[in-house]
Amino acid sequence: MKHPFYRPAALNTTRLVQYLEEINERRWYTNNGPLVRQLTEKLEEYLGVKNLLLVSSGTVALQVAYKALHRKGRIYTTPLSFIASSSAFGWLGSEIHYADIDNQTLNLDPGSVRKYSDITSDDTIVATHLYGNPCDIKAFENLKNETHCKIIYDASHAFATRFQGKNILSLGDASTVSFHATKLFHTIEGGGVVFANADDLARAQKMINFGFNKKNEIEEIGINAKMSELHAAVGLVVLEELDSIIEKRCAIADQYRSILDQTDITTTVIQEGTDICSPSYMPIVLASAKERELLQASMLNDGIETRNYFDSLQSTTELFEGSHKVLPNSQRFNKRVLCLPLYPELTPADITYICDRLRFNLEAIRSEEQVCCTQ
Amino acid sequence: MKHPFYRPAALNTTRLVQYLEEINERRWYTNNGPLVRQLTEKLEEYLGVKNLLLVSSGTVALQVAYKALHRKGRIYTTPLSFIASSSAFGWLGSEIHYADIDNQTLNLDPGSVRKYSDITSDDTIVATHLYGNPCDIKAFENLKNETHCKIIYDASHAFATRFQGKNILSLGDASTVSFHATKLFHTIEGGGVVFANADDLARAQKMINFGFNKKNEIEEIGINAKMSELHAAVGLVVLEELDSIIEKRCAIADQYRSILDQTDITTTVIQEGTDICSPSYMPIVLASAKERELLQASMLNDGIETRNYFDSLQSTTELFEGSHKVLPNSQRFNKRVLCLPLYPELTPADITYICDRLRFNLEAIRSEEQVCCTQ
Repeated sequence: MKHPFYRPAALNTTRLVQYLEEINERRWYTNNGPLVRQLTEKLEEYLGVKNLLLVSSGTVALQVAYKALHRKGRIYTTPLSFIASSSAFGWLGSEIHYADIDNQTLNLDPGSVRKYSDITSDDTIVATHLYGNPCDIKAFENLKNETHCKIIYDASHAFATRFQGKNILSLGDASTVSFHATKLFHTIEGGGVVFANADDLARAQKMINFGFNKKNEIEEIGINAKMSELHAAVGLVVLEELDSIIEKRCAIADQYRSILDQTDITTTVIQEGTDICSPSYMPIVLASAKERELLQASMLNDGIETRNYFDSLQSTTELFEGSHKVLPNSQRFNKRVLCLPLYPELTPADITYICDRLRFNLEAIRSEEQVCCTQ
Repeated sequence: MKHPFYRPAALNTTRLVQYLEEINERRWYTNNGPLVRQLTEKLEEYLGVKNLLLVSSGTVALQVAYKALHRKGRIYTTPLSFIASSSAFGWLGSEIHYADIDNQTLNLDPGSVRKYSDITSDDTIVATHLYGNPCDIKAFENLKNETHCKIIYDASHAFATRFQGKNILSLGDASTVSFHATKLFHTIEGGGVVFANADDLARAQKMINFGFNKKNEIEEIGINAKMSELHAAVGLVVLEELDSIIEKRCAIADQYRSILDQTDITTTVIQEGTDICSPSYMPIVLASAKERELLQASMLNDGIETRNYFDSLQSTTELFEGSHKVLPNSQRFNKRVLCLPLYPELTPADITYICDRLRFNLEAIRSEEQVCCTQ
């Protein structure tokens, strides 16, 4: 593959081995070790947030946020997101209700959530900042104030997103993030939760260690969701290079957008108030599912791997307890988003080449389509 | 501390760094990578088991076993175990019903479980092989045949236990194990499930990767419970030294037992049919909770750290949905078990010293007690 969809940056093994020797010297391998605490502090500083809890995955981050916020009721969420944002709750047996997406940003539409007229203070809105693009924060805040529900933002695509002067992780009752190896910042496997409230953080700290409090008594129903020292070491190593990684990825995303702006290829509309949209993905929105399928195949022929984010709507899996209102926008955009390669090793020439092939292939597909239709 | 309760073996960093370079070369950091597959095969061979699935923790191993076995009903389990064997299910909102323990082995008593007369095929018995000592397998098998329930054994203490010619992990509908850093074999954080049935393994393989099947379709409600390549590398390194670790620990456990046999200090009775009891813990059973408390304090004064396994019965937490029958043995043995230091670096002289202090301190406590009672 000339241009794979993603190529994780190589780890700085020299630095990692130093941490490894430190860990081995201490023989403190997990259980809120010094490297986990160091990474927590450094990330809080880097992001400008408080009340960060590191956990073992982005999926468990959603579960821990939900439980620490004393949630018991229904989940209102988007059908267009990675499956984890539903299945984390499906695993717990929660009722999941889908609302529609906005036709510009493709994010969960607060207006559509509002159509569920029976939202109570027991319920939770789980909204993904899709492709790093912030949700309509103000409208969700209004809805929260009216219904007294809680809001969890899944910021797994949005690590570097800044909105109205703040990192996006500081919003909602809790924001969760995945630190999986394919993410902009990663710990190989891992995740985090940023809580608005220090009490919720304190509860979550017990929950990720079997519910133990500091006196070694069981105070909460908990599990093991601890990040190991080894994974924290990876995070510390990646963090050292993160500014450079983000800078390179921003440059690539900018180049994509400036080339695509001169074509009729559309991408998502960035939410008003966004300072930086995390350069996590480069989505393009195609005219139909068929067009996406044909384009993906022809790009692959050119040695360019793209990804269907997402293969289908979560509301169509029928695995989860719950329901969904009529979701016209979701149906309309289903199977139409394709994500382009985006990682630091891509050169400006690579991006130019990818965009050239994109235009060429899409034009060919559309002409073919036109010929078919007019015949 | 002269003799801490546990000191994890130092990792062979030379070997670990070799694996690290391999991982970095491949840039394949997680998602069922080659090292996870290699560790799976090697562990299956080492243990003589089939259908092993590596996961991210021992707690999630219990959840995955439960879900992959299509469980929905009640859990019948022991109040005397590490909290995870209840809270893994409490996290899922399952109903947990406690039955009593056997007064010899301290394991879950099948006779007491049987007193729940409404066990159905939807229900699950979760039985821990406490301190590595096998449960009464035959009686549980009979109960399973009568009620058509399923049995999950929590073998987290019993990695090296062999029962009637086989590794204990091969028993039950599924056996789970923790590979936490404090365990005999470990991957820092990690766990495993051994399924009796290959179909259940296939379902679980999807479940630990968000429910995706090989065609990238969502087929199950899943989560992220994958072991990373880094944690698998630790497992491979530990496995290389495992025979030596087990040999040393067996020698220590044997020395403890042979010294204690000549005293009136009792330990648990090993289940009939046991070939090897995994040298994971060295429990002693004291006369009362008070005696345990005093002994632990006086041992600490001598620089010897012991552990209360367990601090209290799980049935007393009141956090879980469910109930418990009258549990006289559990009440009787509650807060009476103390575990002694057990790890390869302890020398025969250390064990002699620990046992000497144990006898001396216990004698002092008992004389004091006698004086008090006769006064």
